[in-house]
Amino acid sequence: MENFIAYNPTSLHFGKDVIEGLGQIIKKYGTRVLLVYGKGSIKQNGLYDLVKSQLGSIEAEVFEYSGIRSNPIIEDVDAAAALGRSNSVDVVLAVGGGSVIDSSKIISIAIPVNFPAWNFFIRKAAPTTSVPLIAVLTLAATGTEMNPFAVVTNHKAETKGSFGSPLTYPKHSFLDPQFTVSVPRDYTAYGVADLIAHSLEAFFGKGEEATLSDRLVYSIISEALEYGPLLLNDLTNYKLRAKIMYAATMALNGLTMNGRTSGEWGVHSIGHILSLLYDVPHGASLTIVYPAWLKLQKDRIGERIALLGQHIFGVQGADETIKQLEQFFKNTGCPVRLSEVNGISPDPEEIYRIMVHNKAATNVHKLDYVDYRKIIGLMM
Amino acid sequence: MENFIAYNPTSLHFGKDVIEGLGQIIKKYGTRVLLVYGKGSIKQNGLYDLVKSQLGSIEAEVFEYSGIRSNPIIEDVDAAAALGRSNSVDVVLAVGGGSVIDSSKIISIAIPVNFPAWNFFIRKAAPTTSVPLIAVLTLAATGTEMNPFAVVTNHKAETKGSFGSPLTYPKHSFLDPQFTVSVPRDYTAYGVADLIAHSLEAFFGKGEEATLSDRLVYSIISEALEYGPLLLNDLTNYKLRAKIMYAATMALNGLTMNGRTSGEWGVHSIGHILSLLYDVPHGASLTIVYPAWLKLQKDRIGERIALLGQHIFGVQGADETIKQLEQFFKNTGCPVRLSEVNGISPDPEEIYRIMVHNKAATNVHKLDYVDYRKIIGLMM
Repeated sequence: MENFIAYNPTSLHFGKDVIEGLGQIIKKYGTRVLLVYGKGSIKQNGLYDLVKSQLGSIEAEVFEYSGIRSNPIIEDVDAAAALGRSNSVDVVLAVGGGSVIDSSKIISIAIPVNFPAWNFFIRKAAPTTSVPLIAVLTLAATGTEMNPFAVVTNHKAETKGSFGSPLTYPKHSFLDPQFTVSVPRDYTAYGVADLIAHSLEAFFGKGEEATLSDRLVYSIISEALEYGPLLLNDLTNYKLRAKIMYAATMALNGLTMNGRTSGEWGVHSIGHILSLLYDVPHGASLTIVYPAWLKLQKDRIGERIALLGQHIFGVQGADETIKQLEQFFKNTGCPVRLSEVNGISPDPEEIYRIMVHNKAATNVHKLDYVDYRKIIGLMM
Repeated sequence: MENFIAYNPTSLHFGKDVIEGLGQIIKKYGTRVLLVYGKGSIKQNGLYDLVKSQLGSIEAEVFEYSGIRSNPIIEDVDAAAALGRSNSVDVVLAVGGGSVIDSSKIISIAIPVNFPAWNFFIRKAAPTTSVPLIAVLTLAATGTEMNPFAVVTNHKAETKGSFGSPLTYPKHSFLDPQFTVSVPRDYTAYGVADLIAHSLEAFFGKGEEATLSDRLVYSIISEALEYGPLLLNDLTNYKLRAKIMYAATMALNGLTMNGRTSGEWGVHSIGHILSLLYDVPHGASLTIVYPAWLKLQKDRIGERIALLGQHIFGVQGADETIKQLEQFFKNTGCPVRLSEVNGISPDPEEIYRIMVHNKAATNVHKLDYVDYRKIIGLMM
């Protein structure tokens, strides 16, 4: 087992009607609140009204920034930070999925500074303070609610940037599975895929002696394999929503990394490129890349792939493991090839160029330019 | 899944030579340090010198309280708190196993007050502040290094008291498996038993819908079943020490309780009575009580016991599960009957009287007085 530091200061408030405690928690930090959300789905499912009622109960002064898009962009982060800065807010309240919470993490460190937020992503600046961030999660997928990481797109730079620091953990995150009940079937499936992919990025990272962390990976994936398909056939089932929501949090709150020095993250880096170029939903990009990546890697890390398959599918061998995983993604309605994504015309040369530009998949099990060509072929 | 709040602010520094970062962490809180330890084993294995060297590197002023015994007593807590109070210490530094760290948690909240620490245990007083606590762990067993709980004996009151609050989490805990290498075989086995028992107290608590927490229980116990016996035959093996040490932390840092409203803790409450009356080591008390408790409960919760057995032993049925667990404890050299503990003369009437006095095992799966007689019989 590799040396590690385990630290996660986020308070996770999980369950039915936990939102009723939101006002009192916000009040601890102040009453001038920057409320950040997306394109308005929270107005349809009633969450917006509940949040406003909580804010009303503590007589908060609320400044709203809405319109954060999926695959969030740096321009929104800068604009929201400017709004928070000019109004000297005490708290950033993010209500939404991964895009809204990721953006809000950067907003919370950008409010106290007077330079573009992209500087954090390119390591031109490091945050020294942050406005406290409180999150209300509406989508079980990215795990952002209990980790410090944010991914934001910069179209001018043709890249997605990643950032995380001890200052970008949410102080509190509120997770009520009821607010995920209105998530449509396809995005529910992408969330299941995302949590599986996060678990795998830990499993294929550096630190194969971390056997208890491996067992946790099997546990989280097994939970997704067992209850994900049941949920997709019963989208309003609270118990199933709760299981998947909690599994998604556990898949990327740091625990699966204990005893490892690095996650793999090669698949995510390629997935981000598909999202950047073709606006493929994050979870769907992963169900395309993961099977291709495993096929490419199986001659190098076949034993480890087989170990995974033995524990999560009860099968023998890397080939059978990959087959089962790809079939699972297919069964949940996720694309496993780019050709299965409607309305896009993927260009292998363009993907290759951006992979080179972004040095994709060069963390643990590194891909070279020949591998780039191969994996693009496997994804088409 | 039941509603829950997950919160654990302890920073866990895990691995080889992590002690080298101790001084700089202490310095963040101040340089007047109350150093608490036990009967001197840390002077034999070199840890005392390493700690003093770290304290020297930050020119700390150190006040030492030594002699904390296993099954720690309230008198030591009060005396150590008085020493800390009169010297206005900035930090409590606990170096030892569960007894030392448990005692130090109460010392850290007793220093700021002017009444006996037992008042916290009988809920006559609640802490409002604490001196920051930093722990260096030398025994893989109780999980105290990453939770807020403390158990201390009050012989006058014929009881062991339990206490925990958000103020009694260690700020930082340093876990170097190298410092557990000198733990003798029997106490190593008791530690393995303790971590299994902690996992089971969660599993048999309230909240059987918490399937991912159940999977985590299976994972932690499987780790102990696989690597515990290997370690007992290879006591100086760092990798095995690391696995058991990390498993012990994970068994009681709150994670297995997510989605449950209460742990069972009936077995622990009876185990504490055996320790109180006969000074049986904590882990050994659990290997005596758990098989007996399961035999008593199998007609009531047989399905759940069988579910456990299926996942951790691959066997069918409650009877076979209990048999396997008892055999595992035996194989590791732990007693499974009071008659196997050397040098004590257990008195069933005395045990019964103290069980009644302490209302033992009346939390989730409650035992009545008839059950008390039965379980005492099963333990003899």
